[in-house]
Amino acid sequence: MENDLLRWFRETLPSHRQVLLGAGDDAAVIKLSEGANLVATTDMLMDGVDFRVGEHDPLQIGHKALAVNLSDLAAMAARPVAALVSLCLPRQGGESLAKALYQGMIPTAAQYDMAIAGGDTNSWDGPLVINVTALGEVQPGSEWRRSGARADDLVFVTGSFGGSILGKHLTFPPRVHEALWLAEHLEVHAAIDVSDGLSLDLARLCEASGLGAALQLEKIPVAEAAMLLSDSRQDGISPLEHALSDGEDFELILAVSPAEAARFVGEHPEWKQRLTEIGRFQETAGLWSIEGDHLKPLQPRGWEHRLDS
Amino acid sequence: MENDLLRWFRETLPSHRQVLLGAGDDAAVIKLSEGANLVATTDMLMDGVDFRVGEHDPLQIGHKALAVNLSDLAAMAARPVAALVSLCLPRQGGESLAKALYQGMIPTAAQYDMAIAGGDTNSWDGPLVINVTALGEVQPGSEWRRSGARADDLVFVTGSFGGSILGKHLTFPPRVHEALWLAEHLEVHAAIDVSDGLSLDLARLCEASGLGAALQLEKIPVAEAAMLLSDSRQDGISPLEHALSDGEDFELILAVSPAEAARFVGEHPEWKQRLTEIGRFQETAGLWSIEGDHLKPLQPRGWEHRLDS
Repeated sequence: MENDLLRWFRETLPSHRQVLLGAGDDAAVIKLSEGANLVATTDMLMDGVDFRVGEHDPLQIGHKALAVNLSDLAAMAARPVAALVSLCLPRQGGESLAKALYQGMIPTAAQYDMAIAGGDTNSWDGPLVINVTALGEVQPGSEWRRSGARADDLVFVTGSFGGSILGKHLTFPPRVHEALWLAEHLEVHAAIDVSDGLSLDLARLCEASGLGAALQLEKIPVAEAAMLLSDSRQDGISPLEHALSDGEDFELILAVSPAEAARFVGEHPEWKQRLTEIGRFQETAGLWSIEGDHLKPLQPRGWEHRLDS
Repeated sequence: MENDLLRWFRETLPSHRQVLLGAGDDAAVIKLSEGANLVATTDMLMDGVDFRVGEHDPLQIGHKALAVNLSDLAAMAARPVAALVSLCLPRQGGESLAKALYQGMIPTAAQYDMAIAGGDTNSWDGPLVINVTALGEVQPGSEWRRSGARADDLVFVTGSFGGSILGKHLTFPPRVHEALWLAEHLEVHAAIDVSDGLSLDLARLCEASGLGAALQLEKIPVAEAAMLLSDSRQDGISPLEHALSDGEDFELILAVSPAEAARFVGEHPEWKQRLTEIGRFQETAGLWSIEGDHLKPLQPRGWEHRLDS
């Protein structure tokens, strides 16, 4: 009744000081830090939609399945604690696929000081489905919500955008370390991670905050991959359009007041390279591009199929 | 960018006093009770394996997806707090299917005082996949583990067993209320829920506790459905064999010392009807049936495809 995969899990999954009871019982028991609130998020990834088994390295698929959830914790400024992993494996080669997926997840979990505390492993005649639930913690009231941006706050982003399909969508580093450091050193009014496209996720943050935003398009950090994609496809979609609408950059958008931003970059000039100011929140709803002294409507674009609830 | 389903979630999901931030942000924020530890479990259910879309009522499928997780919380004596629901919907009719699944889950969540705090809704060209993560809480040290049974403890079970395929597998009540009440009134050394078969799950509890168990087979509560199934199939599998090996009863197995059991039924005679003593744990490993004054080996049987980690 003991089976190979279960034994492999027990031997392979590292222990974690906050996981009092891990894989192998009906549920995991986890101790949060004193006074902390629980932050919980879940994401389901499917073969043929979010990755392709046979084309992509299963270690990278495992990394991605965990990292998309870590990115959600980062967007809340939550410290990762534990993950639960559900797999629906194709019958053919399912066990070795499961091990490879875990071998992709385990180093990523370790990098962000997170346990893999349990899960549910199944097989069927269909394609691979992975669901990861990530559990983190925040001190009460210190989470970054989408709804906290204020008019005249500046729009900051980490990293660069566009062309993630060339590889970053599988290998990206979730901005957990950046978020936890920033949460201690910068007053952030609101945040979201860019899973479905810079303009689309910014529009979601705007809507949650009851605001709009005006962007200086020339300031948007366009990834080299966006330029490569635009060059190679020759389909008339510019690198900037890729940066605005490609999904899966997994960078953060932050809302910060101008005075706080000035103080912060004065004290921490090294962050000038890591946070880019791309625009400003405003009372007028919608997204706009700043063209000289007037605003032009900007249609939010991105990946709309995944409907986070 | 606001879509119908997301709006429907926001309008339909009830609020909960412990959910500080629910569906609609990057993650949920949940406040556990003072000093409590988090209990977390996850289960993935697939069309064609755990239910059949088109054959089974989607409200019942929704109930089942949540209730299998509630059963895991019950097996830990954990109080339910919140659930996260991931759906992978077939493109055809996906939105109305999603609503029906939620309409099955919402009353069940309410019945056990649990929030649906968020999730991830996707569509694809494959069959329906549902993953639910259930989050509960226990006071430190008070969870029921599989590993705590002691030699000479009695084996108790709730309810009756076998034939769940005739309907109970979709409509069963998870034993949450029973577990929470028992945790306050009875010293339970170990517990497990019967998801894969009475004998198989008892064998798992035995293995986790480093023990075996000897059963009085004539005392095992055989469900009426097990008799119906045996009658209708005429395949030579007796009602008792169904009770021992059919999966998805979602009853509890409990280990209780003889003295504590005697005290408990003395003080709470009404529980004589609700808890059945079926045998005894022992140092000798394996499952055994008590036949007169000797023991006969009993092969654990059940559903082995779902490999809980």
